[in-house]
Amino acid sequence: MASPDPSLLSLNTATISKQWTLAQAIEGCARHGIRGIAPWRDKLAAMGVRQAASAIKAHDLTVTGLCRGGFFSAKDWLDDNRRAIEDAHELGAQCLVLVVGGLPKGSKDLGRARERVRECISMILPEAKQAGVPLAIEPLHPMQAAERACVNTLEQALDICDALGEDGRSAQCALGVAVDVYHVWWDPKLEEQVKRAGKKRILAYHICDWLVPTRDLLNDRGMMGDGVIDLPRIRSWVEDAGYAGMHEVEIFSELDWWRRDPDEVLRISKERFASAT
Amino acid sequence: MASPDPSLLSLNTATISKQWTLAQAIEGCARHGIRGIAPWRDKLAAMGVRQAASAIKAHDLTVTGLCRGGFFSAKDWLDDNRRAIEDAHELGAQCLVLVVGGLPKGSKDLGRARERVRECISMILPEAKQAGVPLAIEPLHPMQAAERACVNTLEQALDICDALGEDGRSAQCALGVAVDVYHVWWDPKLEEQVKRAGKKRILAYHICDWLVPTRDLLNDRGMMGDGVIDLPRIRSWVEDAGYAGMHEVEIFSELDWWRRDPDEVLRISKERFASAT
Repeated sequence: MASPDPSLLSLNTATISKQWTLAQAIEGCARHGIRGIAPWRDKLAAMGVRQAASAIKAHDLTVTGLCRGGFFSAKDWLDDNRRAIEDAHELGAQCLVLVVGGLPKGSKDLGRARERVRECISMILPEAKQAGVPLAIEPLHPMQAAERACVNTLEQALDICDALGEDGRSAQCALGVAVDVYHVWWDPKLEEQVKRAGKKRILAYHICDWLVPTRDLLNDRGMMGDGVIDLPRIRSWVEDAGYAGMHEVEIFSELDWWRRDPDEVLRISKERFASAT
Repeated sequence: MASPDPSLLSLNTATISKQWTLAQAIEGCARHGIRGIAPWRDKLAAMGVRQAASAIKAHDLTVTGLCRGGFFSAKDWLDDNRRAIEDAHELGAQCLVLVVGGLPKGSKDLGRARERVRECISMILPEAKQAGVPLAIEPLHPMQAAERACVNTLEQALDICDALGEDGRSAQCALGVAVDVYHVWWDPKLEEQVKRAGKKRILAYHICDWLVPTRDLLNDRGMMGDGVIDLPRIRSWVEDAGYAGMHEVEIFSELDWWRRDPDEVLRISKERFASAT
């Protein structure tokens, strides 16, 4: 299988979040010839949305997504998601990534938490449409079901899209999915569900690797090629579904990549994007 | 919802594996009025199968399962599974639990590993039938897909059963599933798939809890009631499917339960079985 087009690499700034501000990350992408960026909202707030939008525009970077909306279990979820939609609009982000939240404190009712996700998305969807910001539900790995996201498979995320009338048949999708290999690589139905999602509902594609052993449930992701995910195979499924967007490298790594020189992290990300995905 | 019948509690000896030999675990169950036991093969070998069978019979304990067969990625898998079937037969175990193994060393081909599981089970199934030992495929949590088991959902396990002609319509099932709440609690399709499994294919039911936070991917399980799994709800689904067998407490806990006095572990398991499941 041929390597992906090098111009399709995007940097999710989580990958160097312990080392760089957003301004530094934007400069870093430009310096390394990385053409896409996906910022997180804490860093965006620290830089200021207008300044960030301006710097991103000056370097002609594509904003492959804004992380994150969602967390519908939080008290201020509605205001927070409204602000996230505004930020994504101002940045011209290709989508707002929804990490939907887990169980409310003290609750064990996963079924109810899941219903609530659908209800809350239906409440913000009109505003997102109006702002021209597609919402991307990101199914998270089942090991994060309690704390971060009770949507845990692509099938489940697409069922929500279907239920809200976003079945992928309209001209543009206001609601779709973010496919992150780390969260879905294990899924026996992955190929089938990527196909079902289709070109219009795959709003983002995130890459990294699953390390063996994995030492932490949240922050021990690997660089592409260092783990056991068959990245070329999953890419072939995503491309066969019609996805032609960018590939966002997103690595949470307390013990390794967050401790390295971020210029080295970007250099190796580029190399591995070409050689291992 | 009413508490479960106290006589249905079984002890998976993993729960006190750092503290007790199998002989001690058998005595412990008898002393605490726990009527079922599920041994592991390393401890079984250390005690001797005949001696273990004799001690278990002397105390009139039910062997709710033998852990474990499977690991089809290992070199000696066939001989090992044959021996496991013999051991299970000699103990009169209600099933042999299959932990099917993950990716072979150096491989990223999860699809092939999964095909192999089906092929290997089909090869040992006739011997298991002849020995009167039902095989229970245990889907393991997706976070263990690479290292321990590439069967990760109940749906996937039941697809294998179906493919091997064990659709639950025959008088007795030679192949079914072990439902361990720790591995499947997050699954949006759990209720549906438990129903699909049905009375005859649910060969074992394992209980414990999911801790928040979880500090280790393998050995940080919680005691029933200490985590976020809605145990009464899952029990209701399992009972509604017709399951009337025992409930096996199985807790791998490096940081807590493996460090406690095992008599305390058994006492609290009994209490929590009544109050939290």
